[in-house]
Formats: sequence, C-alpha cells, structure tokens
Amino acid sequence: MKEAKDIFNFSPLYTDLYQIAMGQAYLLDGTVEKPAVFDYFFRTIPFSGGYVIFAGLEPLLQALENLRFSPQEIDYLRKLNFQKTYLEYLESFRFEADIYSMREGEVVFPLEPVIRVEGRLFEAQLVETLLLNLVNYQSLIATKASRMRLAAGNRGLSDFGLRRAPAQGGFLASRAAIIGGFDSTSNILAAHFFDLEAAGTMAHSFIESHGDEFLAFQKFVEANPDRAVLLVDTYDTLSSGVPNAIKVAKELEKRGLRLKGIRLDSGDLAYLSKKARAMLDAAGLNYVRIVASNLLDEYVIKSLIDQGAPIDIFGVGTKLVTGVPDGALDGVYKLSVFDGQPRLKLSDNIIKTTLPGRKKVLRYSNGDGMFMADAICLADETSPARMYHPFDPEKSLDLSRYQGEELMVKVMEKGKRLKVESDVEAIAAYARERLALLPPEHKRFEYPHVYKVGLSQKLLTLRNDLIHQYRQTFEGG
Amino acid sequence: MKEAKDIFNFSPLYTDLYQIAMGQAYLLDGTVEKPAVFDYFFRTIPFSGGYVIFAGLEPLLQALENLRFSPQEIDYLRKLNFQKTYLEYLESFRFEADIYSMREGEVVFPLEPVIRVEGRLFEAQLVETLLLNLVNYQSLIATKASRMRLAAGNRGLSDFGLRRAPAQGGFLASRAAIIGGFDSTSNILAAHFFDLEAAGTMAHSFIESHGDEFLAFQKFVEANPDRAVLLVDTYDTLSSGVPNAIKVAKELEKRGLRLKGIRLDSGDLAYLSKKARAMLDAAGLNYVRIVASNLLDEYVIKSLIDQGAPIDIFGVGTKLVTGVPDGALDGVYKLSVFDGQPRLKLSDNIIKTTLPGRKKVLRYSNGDGMFMADAICLADETSPARMYHPFDPEKSLDLSRYQGEELMVKVMEKGKRLKVESDVEAIAAYARERLALLPPEHKRFEYPHVYKVGLSQKLLTLRNDLIHQYRQTFEGG
Repeated sequence: MKEAKDIFNFSPLYTDLYQIAMGQAYLLDGTVEKPAVFDYFFRTIPFSGGYVIFAGLEPLLQALENLRFSPQEIDYLRKLNFQKTYLEYLESFRFEADIYSMREGEVVFPLEPVIRVEGRLFEAQLVETLLLNLVNYQSLIATKASRMRLAAGNRGLSDFGLRRAPAQGGFLASRAAIIGGFDSTSNILAAHFFDLEAAGTMAHSFIESHGDEFLAFQKFVEANPDRAVLLVDTYDTLSSGVPNAIKVAKELEKRGLRLKGIRLDSGDLAYLSKKARAMLDAAGLNYVRIVASNLLDEYVIKSLIDQGAPIDIFGVGTKLVTGVPDGALDGVYKLSVFDGQPRLKLSDNIIKTTLPGRKKVLRYSNGDGMFMADAICLADETSPARMYHPFDPEKSLDLSRYQGEELMVKVMEKGKRLKVESDVEAIAAYARERLALLPPEHKRFEYPHVYKVGLSQKLLTLRNDLIHQYRQTFEGG
Repeated sequence: MKEAKDIFNFSPLYTDLYQIAMGQAYLLDGTVEKPAVFDYFFRTIPFSGGYVIFAGLEPLLQALENLRFSPQEIDYLRKLNFQKTYLEYLESFRFEADIYSMREGEVVFPLEPVIRVEGRLFEAQLVETLLLNLVNYQSLIATKASRMRLAAGNRGLSDFGLRRAPAQGGFLASRAAIIGGFDSTSNILAAHFFDLEAAGTMAHSFIESHGDEFLAFQKFVEANPDRAVLLVDTYDTLSSGVPNAIKVAKELEKRGLRLKGIRLDSGDLAYLSKKARAMLDAAGLNYVRIVASNLLDEYVIKSLIDQGAPIDIFGVGTKLVTGVPDGALDGVYKLSVFDGQPRLKLSDNIIKTTLPGRKKVLRYSNGDGMFMADAICLADETSPARMYHPFDPEKSLDLSRYQGEELMVKVMEKGKRLKVESDVEAIAAYARERLALLPPEHKRFEYPHVYKVGLSQKLLTLRNDLIHQYRQTFEGG
C-alpha cells in the first residue's frame, strides 16, 4: 500500500481457488466466453436494522479495471497443475464485462440486485470473490457508521478504529465510515488518499513521557496550536487533567489562540463530560470542545445524549471497524442468466431460492417524496401495476398510481469505468440525502418496520415456472 | 497488493494522525530521540476463552523494516501544516529500534508483555497503530482458528472466508487461520505468497450454467481430475447431487482415477452427511471425502462431531475471518520506560493501570511439562521465588522449586530483523506444540479455568511505589 496508485491493484489471485478451477473447466468445455449475468444481493440486514448503505463500488471498479495476471502468478498456477492452454488464456485476460449498479451510498434492502455483472462466463465468475470481499465489508461498515450518525444527531463523529481494524482492511474501513456519515478519521493514509478530514488528539504516552501533565500539555499545544485536543485522563480527569487543560487554554488566550478541545477516554463519560463542561464554562472556555472515546457504539452514543452528556465529538473505534456483533454482511453473487437462459439456484427454503433473469429495481415514493417500496422487475419491463411479496403470494401492493425510479445504472462498459462518483464526501452526501428519504420507522434500532420489497408479476411467474420445471425433473428422474 | 514484494510496504501514514502530531511536539521539545520502551499486551481473552495464539509478528517486522515516508506523503503532511524541520526529519526517518517478542504462535495470556519495543521516543511511538493493527487482528483470527481446530480434532479444516473477509484484511486472515491450525485456504494469493495449501471445490453457478448437474460434474472432473470436490446441493442433495456424484466417481474409476470429494453447503449437515456417506459407501466409494460448509463455527463443528456426522473436512468462512462475536482483540501499546525512568498510566481501576519498567515473562511448567503459570518480571531479574496476583495481594504462588522459561527473545536490532521464523507452517507447528502443553481445563469452551499470570515482588513493588507517588502528587496538588 506504499503508493496510492497501487492500492487498487488487486491480484486476480485474491480470490478463491475454485474460481480458477472452474475457469479451466469453462475453457475446456467451451462455455468460457458464453454470455452470463450475475447478481450481487444480500439476504439479511445486519445489526437487526432496517436498511443497508451500499458502499465499495468505486474501489471495486478500479480493481476490476486493473485486473491482470502477472508472470509470477501464472508460474504459480502452473505449479498447481493448471493446463498450458488455460494459462495462456489467463496471460492475456482482461476484465471486459458490463456492470450495472445502484449508486454508491444508496439505501438498499434484502433480495434486490445491487450490482449486476454481464459478461463472458469466465470473467463474470472470476470476480465473484473480489466483489464480495470489497462490497460486503464496506457496506457493513457504512451501515454501522450510519447507525452511529443517526444516534449522534449533529454531534461530531470521528473514526479512531485503525488499531483495532482488520489489518489492511482498515484502509477501506475509514472510507466506508465517512460514507456512512462520519466527519473525519484518524487514519491519515485514508485521509490522504480519499481526501478526507484527518483528525486526532494525543496519547497517554505523551503525557507519561513528560511526567508532568501541565508541561506535556504546554509542549503539545506549542507544537500543534491549531489541532490540540488534550487528553485529560492520564492521572485524574477532574483533579488534574481538566484543570491543567484550562490553565493551558488561558495561556493560549493571552496569545490570541484558542484551545480546540479536551478528550475523555475512560470513566463515566456522562458524569465526567458534565463536570468538565461546567469547569470549562466557569473558566470562560465555552468554545473548548469535548471529545469522548472508549468502546462507543450507536447504543452508548444514544444513551450519552439521552443523559444530556455535553459531548461534542464521539471518537469511535473497535465497534465501528469490526461491524460487531454481526461482523459481516451476508451478500452473495448468483448466476441469473446463462447463454440467454434464465437460471436459478433451488433451495428447500424458498427464501434461499435465487431470482432468475436480467433484473432491475424500481423505487416508489409517496406523495411526500418518502420511500415507500422497491419492486424487482425484469430489466425490459416498464413500471409494473402491482408488486408481489417474494414469498407470500397473498400479499401484494398496488403501484398503478406511482412511477418508479430506476435505481441501477450502467457503471462499467467492456471493462472500462463510466462516469461514477469517486469523491467520498459526495458519496456520503448522497447516502445522507437518500437516508433522509427513508421513513423513520425503518431507521429505529428496536424492531424496525420492514421495508417492502416485492417482485413484478413477470418476475414472479418466471421464478415459479423455473422452480416447477426443476422440481418436475427431479420428481420424474 | 499486486506483487508479493509490495505486500508489506506499509505506508507510515497507515497510522493515526496523533502519532504524527505527537512526533512534531517531540521534535520541538527535544525528546524525539530520548530512549523509550513500549509494551504490547492485551487485557481480555476473546470468545470467553482461556488463551490467545499470538500471530502477526513476521508481517509486522517486515513492515517496520520497510517503513519510509515518500515525497508525496511528505507533501501531504505539509498541507496539514506540519513544520519544515519536522518534515525534513521525517524524510530521512528509518525505524531503527530493538524489538523483543514472544515467538509467533506462542500461547499468551492477559497482561503479559507480548512485544517490547525499545527505541527512540518518536519511532517507538509512531509504530503503535501499525503494530496494533497487524497483531490484534491476526492474533484474534489465529485464536478463533485454534478453537475450531480443538473442536475438529483431526478432521480437515479449510479457510473459505475471503468473500466475507474485511477487504484487504482477508490476505492476512488466511495466514492467521493456518497459524491457528487450519490445513488449507481457498485464498490463492495467500497460498501463493505464504506457501500454504490451496483448497477449493466448485460453485452452484457452475452447475446452473450447464443446466444438467451430471453433465456439469463430468465437465468439472474432466478439467480438474485431481482436485474435484463436487458440490451436491444445487438442486436436491440426496435425490440428485449425491447420485450424480456417484455416477461420475464410477466413471472415473474405470479410468483408474478417484473422485476426491463431495461438498454439502445447505440443509441439515448432520443428517445429509450420514445419508451421503451411506450412499457413497454402498457404491464402494468409501474413499470419497465429505466436505461441509455453511455458517460453521467451533460450536457447530463440535455439535456435528458429537452427532456422529461423517464429515471429513469443514470449510469455514464468515465466523473465522470476522472473529465474531468479539471482532477484535483488545491489545494496547503502552509506554513503560522513558529516558531510563519507569512510567505507568494510572486508572481508577487497578486492572487498567499499566505495568512500569522493562519487563520479561517467565513461564513455569509442572513436572509433566505442562504449563502452570507465567510470571511477569523486570528484565534484569533472575527467576523469582514467588509471584503475586496482579490485583489481589493476598494471592501468591511459590515458584522456588521451578525454573522459568524465558518467553521473549530479541527479534529486531536497530531496525533489522534477526532470525525469526517466517515459514507459516512452522509457526503453525509451534502453536500446535505449545497449545498441547496447555492443560485442557484452560482450553474448554465453557468457563475455562483462568491461567495464572503473576508479578514478581520487584515489579509489584515498583508498580505500587509509582502509584503511591502519583497519588500523592494529585492529592497534594
């Protein structure tokens, strides 16, 4: 990750072995270049929540555009006994598929196709793992971040997660945090590369190395007058840290400067923030902001605000970048068309049976402009008059009075990125704007109302016919 | 991550902004090159378990050896208003500290220093974030993997996690999985780079694209005769998948070849594996192995084995690479000596007060060679006669009859790696060997017995004296 330009040069070996093994079979059986369509979608919303923020598109497209097998990688595959003709095919391989996708930052729901890859069977299959790897994780983190944003209202949110982030995964975690609604990140590489606001305070070790806390504060402020947030809990927050910070702030005032803030990192944050605020205000320092950190998540942030804690900025680490308790979005990538024919994966459980055909998603809004329902349709359909519950044929919704908004757009043509938003702050703004259009009952943390996602009559019929056809085959034979 | 050699070229900006901000203060106040010692340790064992497998050392040392600020990175820091003299300092910066560490793969416990960095204040501080980022995550995953190994006994374990792994973090996740006891990984880049066994089967899409399952199996086996594991649940496991796999296996036998295995990926794995085994055996195919996957973790693996499921290889994904439910190891990096003086971070909670001084860890074993207790001592101590509970002065353990094994060795000198095990399989073997020496009561999943970690009298006295000294300061002033 030394140079920014290399960051999205993913190796095509950053995939599962079976993709490469299937590729060899596709080459030998003559299907390698047949047209195929795959859908990316997920089944379950993490965090028992009501929505997901889609993130990771632009890094994915960059990675796909740059995908090449190097000579060393070909050599390695040779050692794994892949055949000469196949290795030659891989040597000249370029990803040249078309991709349709929702916009990055979109509010998305279970079952609906979020990304659709249309290409030759081999290339569309090969990229499954990389696509899932990049989109599942970033969408998970953006969604977690957006929940913290909902809890925090207009208070500040800063990503402090790098030290607990999953190794190199911390780089894109910070990007996803901003998409989900964070203001800044402590991760300077991500800030540099994605043009984000870098933020940070100071560590206990700085104070310990100076021994004297007041001296340490002075030295830090001297070196960083415009960004100093003083960590006040090294020895004792209220009897030492805050009084010393106040002394330093008053000294700064004499030089016409203002202390930016103090940070609480332990103890009862509600109690300490109130006490610290009162002490700061009593000293005429109402502009000094209070940053709080220490195992925060959306529930703790909400509780602190409910308790009236005068915290201006929440620094969130572990529970942001790990996406606990779920740790993963269950996104999958499934074949829906092969060589012009719709395909599905059967399951005893209708919920796990995939949706066949080339599909699009239409979003319907109420008169007030708020999102009401999404319909999954075949790509060549016009806006359907009615949509049907995917698993309960008794339930349907009349859409005849509404015009659906088409959510998927072409983002890649023959392996070249089309104009897609790459500015992370702009993607974040889009996510914010879209989430504002989702009614509040879908955004609450406790038992959120399930957003309606349905199927057009044509899609429902196609799926049921295919299920019937497959079932007959197995009952017959 | 294109070329293997670049994988551990981490940018020094892959850190928290505050490290860079403190560095400027250290330069200006003249402490930048003063000697300092930092300890890496953790406080809580994840998964409610009884031990942690330490992983991530070798990638960390490689990253530190390669740490350089590029001209573009210096330019970026200039834009963030860092000062000219400081930027010049960074331009010529090389990491030149000494590092002492436990061996990678060691079985480790809360509070004990696992890594000790001794260097100039700036360099030792700067690398905090990168060290935590690499070691916390890899140790978490290696520990999770080792729990699955304990559950799986001598059955096979394969890492299928890349698609649910945290973006680029999936690369080191696979390495950590092997250290913890997995046999193989589907992640070919990791297999290539770390010389691991690559494993894989096939996807549902392969069968769907061929339409006919038997034909698909034939084509896959034709292309991959030596590695074919046939996925049997695309349409119906017992009425279609297994019978078709048996037909293909019998065809292969006629050519003198043997089908490697079948994979179950849905449904009741205990029931289906028994039925499938019986069908395979009845066809004379007792050598065909059964691979099972689908949301496995250590508890499900244990339950399947308890139920007598004849599964030969478990393919584990999401719950391995995300380290759920914890998602993080809570490792921290704390200053313990500055300019020759021991330092600590006070806390109202004695459990969060750090241990001062340059320290080492001695491990004591019983007469049967099994691990009994670890003592944290000052680095220049000989084996102490007694160790004390870190928080309960009433509890102590007589060690006078024992000779402790010193666990920390020098792994880096002036920024250059010394001879450290880099072969991942060898590190895994060491972890296996060490874990075998940990008594079973510390390895059980339910309420494991707490392994004894104590302090020498000298360290205890040093800590208590320092606490007393600090407390007096704040009560006095």
